[in-house]
Amino acid sequence: MVLIDGKQTAADIKEELKQEVDSLKNNGRRPPHLAAVLVGNDGGSVTYVNAKVKACQKIGFESTLIRFDDSISELELLEKVEELNKDNSIDGFIVQLPLPKHINDRNITLAIDPLKDVDGFHPENVGRMSLGLPSFISATPNGIMQLLKRYEIETSGKHCVVIGRSAIVGTPMSILLSRNSNPGNATVTITHSKTKNLKEICLSADIIIAAIGRPHFLKADMVKENAVVIDVGTTRVEDTSRKSGFRLMGDVDFDNVSAKCSYISPVPGGVGPMTIASLLMNTLKAYKRRFNIA
Amino acid sequence: MVLIDGKQTAADIKEELKQEVDSLKNNGRRPPHLAAVLVGNDGGSVTYVNAKVKACQKIGFESTLIRFDDSISELELLEKVEELNKDNSIDGFIVQLPLPKHINDRNITLAIDPLKDVDGFHPENVGRMSLGLPSFISATPNGIMQLLKRYEIETSGKHCVVIGRSAIVGTPMSILLSRNSNPGNATVTITHSKTKNLKEICLSADIIIAAIGRPHFLKADMVKENAVVIDVGTTRVEDTSRKSGFRLMGDVDFDNVSAKCSYISPVPGGVGPMTIASLLMNTLKAYKRRFNIA
Repeated sequence: MVLIDGKQTAADIKEELKQEVDSLKNNGRRPPHLAAVLVGNDGGSVTYVNAKVKACQKIGFESTLIRFDDSISELELLEKVEELNKDNSIDGFIVQLPLPKHINDRNITLAIDPLKDVDGFHPENVGRMSLGLPSFISATPNGIMQLLKRYEIETSGKHCVVIGRSAIVGTPMSILLSRNSNPGNATVTITHSKTKNLKEICLSADIIIAAIGRPHFLKADMVKENAVVIDVGTTRVEDTSRKSGFRLMGDVDFDNVSAKCSYISPVPGGVGPMTIASLLMNTLKAYKRRFNIA
Repeated sequence: MVLIDGKQTAADIKEELKQEVDSLKNNGRRPPHLAAVLVGNDGGSVTYVNAKVKACQKIGFESTLIRFDDSISELELLEKVEELNKDNSIDGFIVQLPLPKHINDRNITLAIDPLKDVDGFHPENVGRMSLGLPSFISATPNGIMQLLKRYEIETSGKHCVVIGRSAIVGTPMSILLSRNSNPGNATVTITHSKTKNLKEICLSADIIIAAIGRPHFLKADMVKENAVVIDVGTTRVEDTSRKSGFRLMGDVDFDNVSAKCSYISPVPGGVGPMTIASLLMNTLKAYKRRFNIA
């Protein structure tokens, strides 16, 4: 059994990005520039945005953190988005979700210029991905594809079962894995709460992507020998023994499932650490597209 | 075995649309207005666009046909698209594809305002569909969903196998059938040229959507008893006995497959006739959205 080490893979990607930024700078170019907009003081969001900014600094990207009190109106936030859309010094930006209740997340997402939408949440990017056009793929699906690629896991002709049909993970994974590319070319089955005989379907899978958000849902008796299992679950479970007061639980009953797997990604340390690396990759891509760099 | 009659269903939809237009007019409103842009003289395109215009007239829509010689430049065509985007008297419009070789289809599609894109080809509409947001779904997938709905074919919890992963049929069908709606909620397997054991997969299907464009590809020994089979194939095969010089062949070996089916759509007369009805539905939807009519 090979443990898919998301932390190490993310570190490798960041190192590669750093080298590319160094080379851009050596050629007299300015570094890529990511801006992050954070509204309010939600603990999780603050930590996550700070980690993104720090990751930028570490690899030589310029970064700008724009913070607003959660009293900001939707209109004011839309004006800031418009300003960032037009700002030529910024290559890509994100607005950290969720937003306060009086602001409609969707309206903000739709206002972001698809060419700067490095979170890949704008429908135009989702559609471009589905149509096989150049696009920004959102952090989690992009991270999973990178793991499959870098661990050289064969997907062509394999039966891949995606558990969960969410717009942010399950559905894009089904598209990415079935399209004519590498990784890709898999026969993909999308399953969800209305699926009958899920166990039987999972037992026929060469690759399982578990993305339902139910801790330890995937048990050993649902997985065939030598399967590849990617765990996307990140449910917070109370844990008073930890400083944070919680721990993350995946969708996979890791202790029992892992013994049967050829490859498995753990939680934490699997898909999770890949998300920031994906964001950085998208930012470099946005930069290159703007400046027409191959 | 029930034969899915696309011609009759399309006629039913058109009659419903006509009644709705009559009622709009009785309330003092102007009718919905579809514009169609046709470049050049390709026989198939001319026939198809004329049929669309005629269908508009029949149900009381206003329609405008804009024809250009195939010497028109991409820039001139883009200017016309921009003009139609801004024209408040037009609710939706299409640019008939394919275009002459010196014009990039994609550039034209991308220039159309997504709110007037009644063909549903703009990436923003494709992405909106994938995200479960209001969108224009393109003619073929929309037509298939209408057939499933109107024949009250149960899809929830069923295993649906889609043969073919094209951006215009296979991929959107996999999204539409797997999402939480009715029709929908199916467990969907997307298959394609790299799929192994396709026969075995098809034999496990309650519903098969055949969309590969290979005449009579789906044979009786690939279909289980009482399956539902939707044939999306429309390959033109030379037939000197016909005035047109060709006949349409579906992806399904109809004569042998149909005996095993609970429902089957024939070619011609199945999915094909639904495409214009879908376009008209989208045009009414665009109109209603513009005027905020429920």
